[in-house]
Amino acid sequence: MAQKPSIPKGTRDFSPVEMVKRNYIFDTIKEVFQLYGFMPIETPSMENLSTLMGKYGEEGDKLLFKVLNSGDYISKVRPEVLEARNSTKLTTKISDKGLRYDLTVPFARYVVQHRNDISFPFKRYQIQPVWRADRPQKGRYREFYQCDVDVVGSNSLLNEVELIQIVDQVYKKLNLNVLVKLNNRKVLAGIAEIIGEAERIIDITVAIDKLDKIGLDNVNKEMFEKGIPQAAIDTLQPIILLSGSNADKLNKLKEILSASEVGMKGIEELETVFNYLNDLDVTTEVELDLTLARGLNYYTGAIFEVKSKDMEFGSITGGGRYDDLTGIFGLKDVSGVGISFGADRIYDVLEQMDRFPAETVNTTKAMFVNFGEKEEKYCLPILAKLRANGVKAEIFPESAKMKKQMNYANDKHISFVIMVGESEMEEGLLSLKDMETGEQIKLSVDDLVKKLA
Amino acid sequence: MAQKPSIPKGTRDFSPVEMVKRNYIFDTIKEVFQLYGFMPIETPSMENLSTLMGKYGEEGDKLLFKVLNSGDYISKVRPEVLEARNSTKLTTKISDKGLRYDLTVPFARYVVQHRNDISFPFKRYQIQPVWRADRPQKGRYREFYQCDVDVVGSNSLLNEVELIQIVDQVYKKLNLNVLVKLNNRKVLAGIAEIIGEAERIIDITVAIDKLDKIGLDNVNKEMFEKGIPQAAIDTLQPIILLSGSNADKLNKLKEILSASEVGMKGIEELETVFNYLNDLDVTTEVELDLTLARGLNYYTGAIFEVKSKDMEFGSITGGGRYDDLTGIFGLKDVSGVGISFGADRIYDVLEQMDRFPAETVNTTKAMFVNFGEKEEKYCLPILAKLRANGVKAEIFPESAKMKKQMNYANDKHISFVIMVGESEMEEGLLSLKDMETGEQIKLSVDDLVKKLA
Repeated sequence: MAQKPSIPKGTRDFSPVEMVKRNYIFDTIKEVFQLYGFMPIETPSMENLSTLMGKYGEEGDKLLFKVLNSGDYISKVRPEVLEARNSTKLTTKISDKGLRYDLTVPFARYVVQHRNDISFPFKRYQIQPVWRADRPQKGRYREFYQCDVDVVGSNSLLNEVELIQIVDQVYKKLNLNVLVKLNNRKVLAGIAEIIGEAERIIDITVAIDKLDKIGLDNVNKEMFEKGIPQAAIDTLQPIILLSGSNADKLNKLKEILSASEVGMKGIEELETVFNYLNDLDVTTEVELDLTLARGLNYYTGAIFEVKSKDMEFGSITGGGRYDDLTGIFGLKDVSGVGISFGADRIYDVLEQMDRFPAETVNTTKAMFVNFGEKEEKYCLPILAKLRANGVKAEIFPESAKMKKQMNYANDKHISFVIMVGESEMEEGLLSLKDMETGEQIKLSVDDLVKKLA
Repeated sequence: MAQKPSIPKGTRDFSPVEMVKRNYIFDTIKEVFQLYGFMPIETPSMENLSTLMGKYGEEGDKLLFKVLNSGDYISKVRPEVLEARNSTKLTTKISDKGLRYDLTVPFARYVVQHRNDISFPFKRYQIQPVWRADRPQKGRYREFYQCDVDVVGSNSLLNEVELIQIVDQVYKKLNLNVLVKLNNRKVLAGIAEIIGEAERIIDITVAIDKLDKIGLDNVNKEMFEKGIPQAAIDTLQPIILLSGSNADKLNKLKEILSASEVGMKGIEELETVFNYLNDLDVTTEVELDLTLARGLNYYTGAIFEVKSKDMEFGSITGGGRYDDLTGIFGLKDVSGVGISFGADRIYDVLEQMDRFPAETVNTTKAMFVNFGEKEEKYCLPILAKLRANGVKAEIFPESAKMKKQMNYANDKHISFVIMVGESEMEEGLLSLKDMETGEQIKLSVDDLVKKLA
């Protein structure tokens, strides 16, 4: 009996047109990564659950897709475990592997596992899907690609600068206007220290991170509910709402944070990055944003976020420096910095702004109409010649109705259609139709190759 | 406590050097696919188990990786099912999704699901990983890429011919000598009919398929054990061991199979394909091999297999025509034909034959040595200029010891190292070292760009 086919919720098929658009994004990003000396790696889709569990918080553990052990897995489970009917506990007995949740933890695992083969600083990029058992909703999927670029094994702030240059170049090539928001976790730590709440830096940054979404009042409310004293929250206000140029902000911050060693270190790092950027004529706007905190705990220095200036949208790229990501796998004191490009969001922005180059979807350049056996025989060597000259070309594989063949060419965005009938064969010419303009000309094989190659 | 990092058995990490070599294979294959008018699609890694189960035989069902349902999955299982301790039965209650086992079934599902958006004939390629819970062994992995190219919705034998042209071009570009083995399931069906065992075609082809591996005697023994009468096996012998040119074989077959309609149809199809190939000057050898059967049940016409002529190795590419693959999902009478390139095996052949082009691994072209703050400041705009001219270049991010920096350049197969010290800055020149020859010259920035761009 025939099944009505479908795919798991939150997953997607990508059609040829979607694929070429997605590849345009990936190829642009890769090209820039490579210009900066980054090299690709790939890690397996499945990681041991011991590698993944506990790295993304309790919620993250739940969102991992777990893969059932093969064979007669249940025979290895003791009856009392089954009888307890506890899914979380049972899972540890019947599943050893999970699908990767992001590219960061597998990368840290990779660096530690292969540390003897790696020449540091290790500049790698990785473009692969990740999986999360999130509730599917508009723009949020259970399988999606991440494009990560990281340097590990170097403390130099030049790495931060190069990541901003990469952002600058990628979005220029994609023809999108963006704003880079920059902050530094050490500055945030300094602020927490100054207001006497050094231990609460996570609560404070998580709350501040929501400023754009929920507004200042709710941020203050959240901090209060988390137990930050009102006096400390009051002290925070001018700092959160600091304004002026980046230099203005840094100068004011220097006064406020003068008593905090870590805070002053953060300011120095920010100044170094801004100085590099001035020297290098990076034209994308880079704004110091003290409300930028990013939720992830492992960041310890610079943090970045990139927003589209063309339209309201969430962050389309983000990242930061982490001083001890590989520590969880036993390799201490390896600092890294990296960013991640959100391909799905970039796709949506390009689509909504209509910024995909027209030629992206023109994949096959020319199609020969198939008028029958004799004409086909005449056309095939010409088709071979076009392909030998690098022209993407095809012939309709059977002599179907003209309308069907032309519809096919149209649907596939084929630029030119070539027709060879009795008269063309006699004259030794071909008829070439430009599908864009409708214009039709007769020309020789040599001229055809010259025109299309 | 630090964990000793590892990955699930049968899976692999790919290092930068492995990645660029793999990408060389994938890019070569894709380029040829596109020349022939094929377009990419992608399907989700997870499919509903209802899509996958029963498509690969009983053994295949066992080899599917099943993904545990999210949330409190156990609460939905009735106690008696748990108490039965039957893994196969329990799996159906706690897992709805599985990782794809190949690209063929997801493709059939895709075609049926999106049939109203597809313009037929649909020429697609798909390069994605698949997963099988096979026992890991040398050269066999639990996660590996398949590169499939198929046309569906066209009965024309020109499609078979174009697939052979694609094989011809891919392996020429990869600089590998191959032999294409061609057969036709209808001819095999005709043979089974002639020997009076039309119902046993699967048993016969599965046994014949092993001729290369286990020898004629064991093939005959297997057929006998499967219940094929000795008389029929005797009749088969001259057919299996037919020799001479393709034309010789076809002529002899025409006599032997003259009473079988399906057999004669198969011969006609083979002749059509060989005639096309002669007209098109395909130089790769295509051999009619009646012992070629391929295990998969869904093939109904042409079947192909490609072997390396450079070294003994299994099949590196294979495929065939299937008349009703989409039938399982409710779309009848859609014939297709396709082949699959085995990227891992191609990799191994290229590696063992040392046929990867040397430039494949030279990813970063030039590295600036970092002598300190002043020199770095001098170099950064030059580095930016190189990149703006499309040169993959980098600077060592900190002024580490010379030896460390040079080792890094060596390990990364960087072609040129650029050194700028006091004297170069005074002269306005750069020192450029060719890492291959060891040769070192001084030159201006403009000459550097000209040389490397």
